[in-house]
Amino acid sequence: MNIEELCQRAVQASRALTKTTAAQRSEGLRSIADAITARSSQILEANAVDLANAREMGLSKSMIDRLALDEMRVAKLASAVREVSNLKDLIGETVSENRRPNGLLVSKVRIPLGVIAMIFESRPNVTSDAASLCLRSCNAVILRGGKEALQSNLALGEAIRAGLEKAGLPIDAVQVLSTTDRAAMQELLQQEASIDLVIPRGGEGLIRYVSANSRIPVIKHYKGVCHVYVHKDADLEMACRIAENAKASRPGVCNAAETILIDEAIAARFVPMVCQTLTDAGVEIRGDAQTQELAGVPVKQATKADWHAEYLDTIVAMRVVADFDAAVAHIQQFGSNHTEAIVSGNSAITEQFKAVVHSSTVVVNASTRFADGGELGLGAEIGISTTKLHAYGPMGAEGLTATKFVVQGDGQVRT
Amino acid sequence: MNIEELCQRAVQASRALTKTTAAQRSEGLRSIADAITARSSQILEANAVDLANAREMGLSKSMIDRLALDEMRVAKLASAVREVSNLKDLIGETVSENRRPNGLLVSKVRIPLGVIAMIFESRPNVTSDAASLCLRSCNAVILRGGKEALQSNLALGEAIRAGLEKAGLPIDAVQVLSTTDRAAMQELLQQEASIDLVIPRGGEGLIRYVSANSRIPVIKHYKGVCHVYVHKDADLEMACRIAENAKASRPGVCNAAETILIDEAIAARFVPMVCQTLTDAGVEIRGDAQTQELAGVPVKQATKADWHAEYLDTIVAMRVVADFDAAVAHIQQFGSNHTEAIVSGNSAITEQFKAVVHSSTVVVNASTRFADGGELGLGAEIGISTTKLHAYGPMGAEGLTATKFVVQGDGQVRT
Repeated sequence: MNIEELCQRAVQASRALTKTTAAQRSEGLRSIADAITARSSQILEANAVDLANAREMGLSKSMIDRLALDEMRVAKLASAVREVSNLKDLIGETVSENRRPNGLLVSKVRIPLGVIAMIFESRPNVTSDAASLCLRSCNAVILRGGKEALQSNLALGEAIRAGLEKAGLPIDAVQVLSTTDRAAMQELLQQEASIDLVIPRGGEGLIRYVSANSRIPVIKHYKGVCHVYVHKDADLEMACRIAENAKASRPGVCNAAETILIDEAIAARFVPMVCQTLTDAGVEIRGDAQTQELAGVPVKQATKADWHAEYLDTIVAMRVVADFDAAVAHIQQFGSNHTEAIVSGNSAITEQFKAVVHSSTVVVNASTRFADGGELGLGAEIGISTTKLHAYGPMGAEGLTATKFVVQGDGQVRT
Repeated sequence: MNIEELCQRAVQASRALTKTTAAQRSEGLRSIADAITARSSQILEANAVDLANAREMGLSKSMIDRLALDEMRVAKLASAVREVSNLKDLIGETVSENRRPNGLLVSKVRIPLGVIAMIFESRPNVTSDAASLCLRSCNAVILRGGKEALQSNLALGEAIRAGLEKAGLPIDAVQVLSTTDRAAMQELLQQEASIDLVIPRGGEGLIRYVSANSRIPVIKHYKGVCHVYVHKDADLEMACRIAENAKASRPGVCNAAETILIDEAIAARFVPMVCQTLTDAGVEIRGDAQTQELAGVPVKQATKADWHAEYLDTIVAMRVVADFDAAVAHIQQFGSNHTEAIVSGNSAITEQFKAVVHSSTVVVNASTRFADGGELGLGAEIGISTTKLHAYGPMGAEGLTATKFVVQGDGQVRT
């Protein structure tokens, strides 16, 4: 496989896409959904090959579960693509407009980025999710998944390309790399002239590797060390519910809480409540000395490493803080710019929290688990950025676009 | 100088800035303008040292002119800062808002990027321009100018910091590196944990060096190979005026036209007109065979290198194209995503041009020279981005901000 040629085909496809209408792209997405359904048995056969290899390689049960498709899951992939076909098409939208004193009309108009490279680990659903969001935003995409899912990704890619072809759209708008060689990926990451954006999705190791090796802009999501801060004026029942939901409803995801901060003024009442609730939910607590003293249930001693930890597990760190400023200082020192929640009935305090905490999602009186493209109303999510450039927080179709300046004149020259 | 400590101070200052109000930042900008005026003589003394060194080093006359300050120029620096103090403060602005079915109110709120590093060549005005735009957008900035202007930049930096101090703002919001060592710059470019964005301003060499050596996101502006395309339905008088203005009004700037494309259908009438006009304006023309044949004035033969060239001089390339598609194909192949203009009275054609040309500024019936932050209504400009990530085209205060998600609930948890 010649990576440079593949990238050139992506550039050509992205240019051809800019000549299509929103209606044609919607039709293309429906056609892709149909093709995935029609090719369900081929996709499952390919997946069976991946699964057999995975068992031979001794992959963990949870890894195999993430890899496995069945008819129901394939149907879900198709219906997710169909949902994206119903999202608003943003391309060509005028974002702002101003008339200059010399009569020039200056607009900012939304355009696609061009060519996206998506580098991900073993879940095959990323193939169809990313392809559909890229087509919705009029971008060509190059997909490089993990080696465990290679056959599944290729079969899905073929279905997607068949759908594009049937709808009269350029098939090279979606290309799946047929190799998972590191060398091929490295070459891909050097194609600055063709690729506009690289999105790595997976563990911190993958993301660091991609950022370190790319000459192309990368959207990074390193980790989610999310906090729930329970202020002294919180409704403590609400705070308890939110803390439990934020940690225990799905501990392995990036928007799960990892640290709970509690104002000293309410610690004597709140620490035992929340520790009992979390312990009942099967969560291990690692606390500072005050937490250990007040908990009423067994609490391990937290070390500094716990304040930094993204457990992604049924473990939570807990710390009693002097006041609002100490809570914010803790978040600024140890947070990862993902999501922080405050629970407080004092609106002066919640406004201050919203003003000074600059994590990508700041939540007042609700669970950190809402930091998700679907929950925030983006329709679908291609990733979550924890760096502020270009996109910050959950990133949907809009994050795959840019704006250009359009200047309409009637002969103006500059004096 | 310890670069890491300097960056830490910038982070602290950027956090302190987020606790200030828009009115305080406006007051800070006025205070900086006053301080520049008050320290005019110190700034000029420092500039005299730079100028003496520059003459000793045998710098060119135009380089020395760009470096030189006098009382009038210092007054202009101060008044530019004062103008920025009148720009709208964007921080805290709610960009969009939607109510979710579960009652959550999801907003996108504008925030500063944090810490900006600005790396630039010898014009000292960049010091005060960049510092003021960064303060307007509530960011801390680290400035690393060229060695030729070091004393001037340091003196300006001291004035700016005096202005900040007088207004009660953190002085480390603006820091000028006291060395222009490459080693110090390299270390600066590795401070991913503290710096959010690097903006290099200068020649292509500087920009390539910074992008190749930075682990931090970089806003790139490689070059401006701007086109004027004269469509067959153009008002030819207007087209002539626009071509002349785009090339000859200031040939050395990045928004000057470098290539003029002319529809074959009007070539026999337009080529001699525009060639005469440009020749009268002192511009050397390098054309394809058809241009040479039709020009009526001496035209050098263009080679492929001319289609790629950013002359930044009184030279222009000229090519006769078959039609609209050929013009767009030329722009896509040789353009640099800076600015392209079309001249045509056919609105179906100009709409198509606006839709398919994705350069950062697309101009209809006006000069490419309008691709400038001031002319487009941004108030002031910190640079021009020719890559689509984060900012595209002229970049003002808004380009130095990001948006975060703010989620207001009343106890919602995720089911």
